[in-house]
Amino acid sequence: MKRPINLNADLGEGFGSWRMGDDAAMLEIVGSASVACGFHAGDPQIMARTLATAFSRGVSVGAHPSFPDLQGFGRRRMDIAGEALESILIYQIGALAALARAQGGVVTHVKPHGALNNMACQDAGLADTVARAVKRFDPSLVLLAPAASQLAERGRDAGLPVVEEFFADRAYTDDGELVPRAEPGAIIHGVEACVRHVLDMLGAGGLVTVSGKVIPAALQSVCVHGDDTAAVATARALRDGLVEAGHELVTIPRLRTD
Amino acid sequence: MKRPINLNADLGEGFGSWRMGDDAAMLEIVGSASVACGFHAGDPQIMARTLATAFSRGVSVGAHPSFPDLQGFGRRRMDIAGEALESILIYQIGALAALARAQGGVVTHVKPHGALNNMACQDAGLADTVARAVKRFDPSLVLLAPAASQLAERGRDAGLPVVEEFFADRAYTDDGELVPRAEPGAIIHGVEACVRHVLDMLGAGGLVTVSGKVIPAALQSVCVHGDDTAAVATARALRDGLVEAGHELVTIPRLRTD
Amino acid sequence: MKRPINLNADLGEGFGSWRMGDDAAMLEIVGSASVACGFHAGDPQIMARTLATAFSRGVSVGAHPSFPDLQGFGRRRMDIAGEALESILIYQIGALAALARAQGGVVTHVKPHGALNNMACQDAGLADTVARAVKRFDPSLVLLAPAASQLAERGRDAGLPVVEEFFADRAYTDDGELVPRAEPGAIIHGVEACVRHVLDMLGAGGLVTVSGKVIPAALQSVCVHGDDTAAVATARALRDGLVEAGHELVTIPRLRTD
Amino acid sequence: MKRPINLNADLGEGFGSWRMGDDAAMLEIVGSASVACGFHAGDPQIMARTLATAFSRGVSVGAHPSFPDLQGFGRRRMDIAGEALESILIYQIGALAALARAQGGVVTHVKPHGALNNMACQDAGLADTVARAVKRFDPSLVLLAPAASQLAERGRDAGLPVVEEFFADRAYTDDGELVPRAEPGAIIHGVEACVRHVLDMLGAGGLVTVSGKVIPAALQSVCVHGDDTAAVATARALRDGLVEAGHELVTIPRLRTD
Repeated sequence: MKRPINLNADLGEGFGSWRMGDDAAMLEIVGSASVACGFHAGDPQIMARTLATAFSRGVSVGAHPSFPDLQGFGRRRMDIAGEALESILIYQIGALAALARAQGGVVTHVKPHGALNNMACQDAGLADTVARAVKRFDPSLVLLAPAASQLAERGRDAGLPVVEEFFADRAYTDDGELVPRAEPGAIIHGVEACVRHVLDMLGAGGLVTVSGKVIPAALQSVCVHGDDTAAVATARALRDGLVEAGHELVTIPRLRTD
Repeated sequence: MKRPINLNADLGEGFGSWRMGDDAAMLEIVGSASVACGFHAGDPQIMARTLATAFSRGVSVGAHPSFPDLQGFGRRRMDIAGEALESILIYQIGALAALARAQGGVVTHVKPHGALNNMACQDAGLADTVARAVKRFDPSLVLLAPAASQLAERGRDAGLPVVEEFFADRAYTDDGELVPRAEPGAIIHGVEACVRHVLDMLGAGGLVTVSGKVIPAALQSVCVHGDDTAAVATARALRDGLVEAGHELVTIPRLRTD
Repeated sequence: MKRPINLNADLGEGFGSWRMGDDAAMLEIVGSASVACGFHAGDPQIMARTLATAFSRGVSVGAHPSFPDLQGFGRRRMDIAGEALESILIYQIGALAALARAQGGVVTHVKPHGALNNMACQDAGLADTVARAVKRFDPSLVLLAPAASQLAERGRDAGLPVVEEFFADRAYTDDGELVPRAEPGAIIHGVEACVRHVLDMLGAGGLVTVSGKVIPAALQSVCVHGDDTAAVATARALRDGLVEAGHELVTIPRLRTD
Repeated sequence: MKRPINLNADLGEGFGSWRMGDDAAMLEIVGSASVACGFHAGDPQIMARTLATAFSRGVSVGAHPSFPDLQGFGRRRMDIAGEALESILIYQIGALAALARAQGGVVTHVKPHGALNNMACQDAGLADTVARAVKRFDPSLVLLAPAASQLAERGRDAGLPVVEEFFADRAYTDDGELVPRAEPGAIIHGVEACVRHVLDMLGAGGLVTVSGKVIPAALQSVCVHGDDTAAVATARALRDGLVEAGHELVTIPRLRTD
C-alpha cells in the first residue's frame, strides 16, 4: 500500500499590484496551499483568486495568518499575545473561510506565518494561544505545524488534528530546529539533494539532523517554498521523487491525524 | 397587538487605543448593533469585545463593512467596485462572523458603512455588488438598508431579507434622501423633536419629507447614532417613546422581512 | 547647439518584500526619477536605497506623492481635497526630502501619482491644492506635470517652475488627454514607433493627437514607464534616438523653466 | 537667578476621526510638544493642526517618531533595527519638519515614542541608531531622552545636544528605570505628590529612587502626560509649583545643552 504524503506551499503572497511567486505553477504540483490572509500579504481579491485556482485544481486550502505587518512581510517579531493575538488569528481565518464559502469551498487547515510561527514553535504560551484560536473557530481544522515543535505538541494537547511539516531545503539542528540561515550548511542546495533529504527523513521516521541524529516525528507534509525561481523545479522534482519512492500524494484532509 | 420596531446603532468604532462613543450604554438600549470590521474602524480585539457585550445583552449583531479607509473613517468616496468590492465585503463579514462564532454567537445582518452605504443607495451597480457579496456569504443574512433606497430595492431583488432603517435626527428630501448636513434644517435638534419625527413617520407608513410629502416605506428599524454625547439620551428617549406609543422593541432577526 | 531634453521614470515602487520594475537598469538611462513616498508604494528603506542609487548615477530626484492607497497603488480615485490633501502632500514630500538630506542630496521636483495626478489634470481646484502644497514646502521645487494640463497651468500661475512631460507610448486625444487604455490605439506599440512618436512631437512643438492636430506645449521631459519588461529596452532606444536627433539629455534642474 | 526648566508633553496623538487628550489645554501650559508623526498616531492633517496651535502659543515642537504600529499605538516591541529603523525615523522626522516649514516654523527636538523609546533606553545599538538618524537629518536637533538612560548617553556620544526628561508621576528603581506599572507604588498619585516628587528630584540633582538613592542626572525637562483627564490639572499644578520654587519655564531650544 502506498504511504500518503502531502506537499504544501504558502501562496497568495502578493498584495495589491505586487506579485510574489508563481502561484499558478505551484497549484499544479502541491496538494495543499496555505493562503495569506491580508496581514503580511494577500488582499481580499488576491485571496479570492488564489482560492478559486486552488479549488479548481483540487488543492486543499488553509489559512496562513500572521502578525499585522505588511511592510515586514510578517517576519518581524512583535509583542502580541493572549486575547489580542487570539482575535487577530480568528479574524484572519474567518476572512479566508468566508471567501472560500462564497465559492462553495472550505478552509481545512491553519498554518501560522513567519515570526509568529517561529515564536509559537518555541513559546508554549503562544502555541496555546494559536491552538485556542483555531479551536474556538472550528475544532475540526487541522493545525499544520513544524515537526517536533511546541506548536505541534500544544495543538495536539488542545485536541486539534495536527499535521507535522518539514522542509526539503533546510538542515535541522539536534534540537529539531532549523539551522539559522546565516550559518553554513543551513540551506540544502540542488534539487536532487533536496529530494534525498526528504526521502532520508521519511525513511528514518523523523527529522535527520546535521549530526545524523534522528528526532522521531510523524512527518506527513513537506513544505515547498513558492517565492523563488527555483521553487517550481524543486517542487516538481519532489513530487516525482516521492511518487517514485512509493508515496501517494494527498491533500491535508486526506491525511490521518489521529 | 404591539407593533414590532427595532433600534439599531453602529458600534465598535474605536481603533487600537482610540475609543468612540459609549458602546456599553448604547448596548443597554438598542436591539441590534452594526459592528465595524476593521476597515474604517474596529480592530479584531475591539470587535471581539463589542460582540461579547452585545451577546451578553441579547443584542443582535450585524457586520458594518466599509471601504478600506481608517484615516477617513470610511467616509471618503473611493473608486472600488465589482469583484474587488465584493471580496472586500465578504472578507469583513467573514472576519466578524468568525469572531462571533468563537463566542458561540452569530451575525444576523449586514449594513454597509459611510461612503459605501451612501454610494450604494444611489448606484444600482454598487447596490447589486453589495447584495451579491452578502448573498454569496450567507443568503439568510438580513440587509439593513436606508428606507426607500436603491440598496433596499436591489437587496430584495437579490432575494435577501431586507430591513429598512430611518433616522430619528435627520430630515428627508422629497427624493427620499437625507437633507445634506450643510443645509439648514438637515438635523432635527432636541430629544423630543426626534421622538416626534420617528412617531410621525411610523404613523404615516413612510418617510415624511421636509415638504410634508410621505414616501411609503416599510419602516422597521430606527438608526440611533452612538458617537456623540447626546446620543445615549436620545436613544433612551426614543426607546421610551416607542414603548409608550405601543411598539414592541425587538432585534432584527425577530422582524418580519417577507 | 543641442536642445536639452529630460527622460524621467517613476521608481522606488516596491513595498516591503515586494519589488516592481528594474530600478537599477532605469537609473542608468533616465536623467530624473520620481520616487514613491510610502502612500501608494515605497517604504522608508526602499526610498533611501532608491535615492542612494539615483544620487550615485547623477540622476535628479523628485517626490512622487499619492493618495493613501497601498492596495490600490494610488490608482483609485479618492475624495480627498483641500487642507487634508495639502497636508498629505507636504508630509510625503518632506519625508523623501529628509531621506535625501540624510545622504547629502536634495529633492528637486514633485510629480503627483496616479489617480491624484489624473484628477489634478482636470480639476483646477485640486491642481491649485497640489501647487500650493509644493510651494509652501519649497517654492523652488519644479512641478513635473503632464503637458497642456490644468496642473501645469495652475502650477505656473502659482509661480512654481513647471516642466511639462509627455508619454512615448500613449496616444493623445484632441483635448490633449491620453486616449483611455481601453480604447483601440491608446498604446503605441513597438520601440521604434515610440521613438518616432516622441521625435514627431518634439519636432511639432506640442502634443500630436490621434487626428494629427498639434496642441502647442513646452515639451521638456519624456516619461518612460519602469514597471514592465519592455520598459528598459524602450527607455534605451528613446535615449539613443534623442541623442541621434541632436538632443542633449539632462536632469530636470538643468532644464529652463522660465 | 531663576533656574530654567522645561515642561513637555506628547501631543497630536489622535488619528483620523479619533481624538486623544486635550491638546489645546496642554498647549497653554507646556513649553514643548512632541508631535506624533503618523506611525503610532497622528495623520498629516492632525500634525499640521497641532503644529499650528503650538506655534501660535510659542510652544517649541519636536518629532515623536515610532515603530509603525497604529493599532498598538507604538507600544508593542517590534524587531526593527539598523538601516530599516534609521530610514523609518528620518522619514517621520522629515514629514513633520516639512509640515512645520510649510507654516514658517521649525522642529527643534526629537523624542522616540513608546516601545522604541523603552528599547533604546536599554539597548545601546538601538540608541546609536536613533542618534545617527537624528544626526544625519539635522545635527542641531535636540534629542529629548529619559534621564540617565543609554539613549541620553549615546546621543551625547554622537555629538547631539541632549535634554534629559523625567516623570512627575512615576517612581524610579535604583537602576534609574521606571518602576513597572504593574508593581505597587509605580504611579505617584495626587497632584501635590507629583509636584513634590519633581521638586525633590530637582533639589537632589538627579532621579530620587524608591529606596531614596539619588542617581545624578542633568534634569532639564519634566514630561507631563496628555492623555488622561487628570493630566491638565497635574500639568497646571506642576507649572505653578515650579514657578513658585523659583524656576523659569522655557522651551527646549532655550535650555543649555552643552
